[in-house]
Amino acid sequence: MRAPTTQPSTLAPVPRPRPQPTRPAPARASTSDVLVVGAGLIGAAASWQALRAGLSVTCLDPTPGAGASFAAAGVLAPVTEATLGFESLTALRVASAALWPAFAADLVAAAQAAGSPERDVGFATHGTLAVGYDASDADQMDRLHAQHGLLGLHSEPISVSQAREREPSLAPHLSCALWVEGDHQVDPRAVHRALQTVLTTDPRSTLLRSGAATLLLGADGRAIGVVDAHGAVHHAGIIVLAAGTASGRLMAATGRARLPVQSITGQTLRLRPPCGVTLGHVVRGTVHRRPIYLVPRADGEIVVGATSEGATTAADLGTTRGMFALLHDARRLVPSIDEQAFVEVTSRGRPGTPDNLPLIGETGVPGLLAATGHSRNGIVLTPLTALALGVLFGDPPRGAAGLSQVLAHADPRRFAL
Amino acid sequence: MRAPTTQPSTLAPVPRPRPQPTRPAPARASTSDVLVVGAGLIGAAASWQALRAGLSVTCLDPTPGAGASFAAAGVLAPVTEATLGFESLTALRVASAALWPAFAADLVAAAQAAGSPERDVGFATHGTLAVGYDASDADQMDRLHAQHGLLGLHSEPISVSQAREREPSLAPHLSCALWVEGDHQVDPRAVHRALQTVLTTDPRSTLLRSGAATLLLGADGRAIGVVDAHGAVHHAGIIVLAAGTASGRLMAATGRARLPVQSITGQTLRLRPPCGVTLGHVVRGTVHRRPIYLVPRADGEIVVGATSEGATTAADLGTTRGMFALLHDARRLVPSIDEQAFVEVTSRGRPGTPDNLPLIGETGVPGLLAATGHSRNGIVLTPLTALALGVLFGDPPRGAAGLSQVLAHADPRRFAL
Repeated sequence: MRAPTTQPSTLAPVPRPRPQPTRPAPARASTSDVLVVGAGLIGAAASWQALRAGLSVTCLDPTPGAGASFAAAGVLAPVTEATLGFESLTALRVASAALWPAFAADLVAAAQAAGSPERDVGFATHGTLAVGYDASDADQMDRLHAQHGLLGLHSEPISVSQAREREPSLAPHLSCALWVEGDHQVDPRAVHRALQTVLTTDPRSTLLRSGAATLLLGADGRAIGVVDAHGAVHHAGIIVLAAGTASGRLMAATGRARLPVQSITGQTLRLRPPCGVTLGHVVRGTVHRRPIYLVPRADGEIVVGATSEGATTAADLGTTRGMFALLHDARRLVPSIDEQAFVEVTSRGRPGTPDNLPLIGETGVPGLLAATGHSRNGIVLTPLTALALGVLFGDPPRGAAGLSQVLAHADPRRFAL
Repeated sequence: MRAPTTQPSTLAPVPRPRPQPTRPAPARASTSDVLVVGAGLIGAAASWQALRAGLSVTCLDPTPGAGASFAAAGVLAPVTEATLGFESLTALRVASAALWPAFAADLVAAAQAAGSPERDVGFATHGTLAVGYDASDADQMDRLHAQHGLLGLHSEPISVSQAREREPSLAPHLSCALWVEGDHQVDPRAVHRALQTVLTTDPRSTLLRSGAATLLLGADGRAIGVVDAHGAVHHAGIIVLAAGTASGRLMAATGRARLPVQSITGQTLRLRPPCGVTLGHVVRGTVHRRPIYLVPRADGEIVVGATSEGATTAADLGTTRGMFALLHDARRLVPSIDEQAFVEVTSRGRPGTPDNLPLIGETGVPGLLAATGHSRNGIVLTPLTALALGVLFGDPPRGAAGLSQVLAHADPRRFAL
């Protein structure tokens, strides 16, 4: 039997040589306790969790935070998103949403200690107003409220005029309203900035933007490192795959386990009120049964989301139809957005799985963990994902013991070869 | 009387000192025959014209080509845009559109000689299909066609089914169609790339991105230079103000002449067909009397334009209403865009003037020329603007003599104090 440290081999067949970049970057190797592939919100949170567990960490991503995290609106909505037949997902969302207050507070404290001037990450608990546009939307809301009763979640049917008292910008003709005190929001871009501040100031962490991971390395069946696009080798005792839609490809090349991740394109819009007038709550609802939400930030910006389509192109662009429906439906619920400045359309691929549940934890390959497949739930599930990794890093965070049952729904080995 | 070269003074009152940037850039002075303020399409074309006149040129712009030129769709449409009451503007458009074939050919040759790999600048003469959506749009098209007769412009009413034969993607229910062989298109981003290649390779030209112009300098009533944002002084015998919406502010600070330029916000959309299916012609028209156009590029991309609104914010963002109307109307004329990938919304301020005519030529301040105020017509008027400057650079291009009458409509001194 060969010693694993002296004879590394690829877990995958050796790939064709890549074309050399015009100016070859120095292929510097790295070694750390934990290597995280991907620095989106999930990868950055995983890296922070490694630091909190007292480990050194290298996080590899040429464009940190520029993927799905950059498009996300940041709704934390286990109640209004509870859907019959998806009880496991609801349980994961409920468990993770409950972790958000402490996660946000700890992160702000860590970022401020690392020199961040920002006072918060946009975690706001003003509650959510859910509304429906037509009669079929009202039927759907009735069913949603009935489910809340079955699942032990709290929501309160109110009249449309009561809803308009709380949110005067609501359209005059709506069919129903539901007050959901427990659905909140956070600003994913602010969360990522805070994580990045921590990761780039802690001497035990390295955020490497040199090149994406192209290949997993193994020895004696154990994952021992990653090769990046410049050919540099990064070794670690534990490797975490948090590469979003790229995670499946990296894993597939090993032939050793399976992470069935497929891109689901989503578009969000960002609007800016002309004179600071904005919404006081997250407004969400259905218009002709299509879901839509409007998320107001503290600075007045409103994020409208989100489409959900199979990938149309390699660049993860949504369709014109999806974009039009988003605008159409948002105007139906809050007509005054017409006067707002149109800031941005952001289209990104989200890592979806066949059963809509994420892939968090051991993969079946020793040394290789997954933290991906979060689909539309990456933001709400960030604290729970970090906690699950904390357990596997050998440093179970407070409250972790009670969550093993709910985390079993996210076990990546359910798709084992 | 003081010698102009030894005692420069500001044309304006001395401004307050600007805050120092964190890393002060070296304040390098420059001297050239011509100094062009602004490297949008107009400023870059002005700079190329100076080179063609045998002069050295410095062109100052921190973000060349990132302004209105970046949003522009590039319609060259003197016929379909002919409007009663705007005969001077039509005359300028007709004159400049006639210069485009030679301008494009000369530019491509110059860019290729300078090492550009691009074979063209998207100048395409497939003609334009104008269509209307409802009965009032048909009335408007009747009037447009009648004007063409009065103005000596050519257009040909055709049936809607004839239009659909030429362009199968047209919607089934349209009210009218007009075939306009003489309205063309060009790709403004490709034109700008070509100009930039020429300007950055010719040893007599300098494209300075260090800082925007903040102040005009004068001596004895003559413009002699510009101070940039880093305090560097740039001297030249001739100064051309081609700073788009910023031109008015620079000129106003002199207290010596007036360039009444105000930002008019415009949004364009960029779509990409899923499998290369695109339009064969520029399609334009009115939907409930709102103008709209779809411009197909050779690579399949479709540019949809354009809104036209007073500036809503400092960042020149259009409204959600404008954006929604653009999408709504484009879908009315070509429903299949629903399937296309939504690539980009681009919103920019265009330099508008009170009479919708540009400001090209002498300003009344010796040594100071204007090339701005092109509003929606910057692309079509680029060759005519360059030609007018060629005359003032002392090197009249071929054909310039016959154009002095039409250029009189653009004389900046019509707004003299």
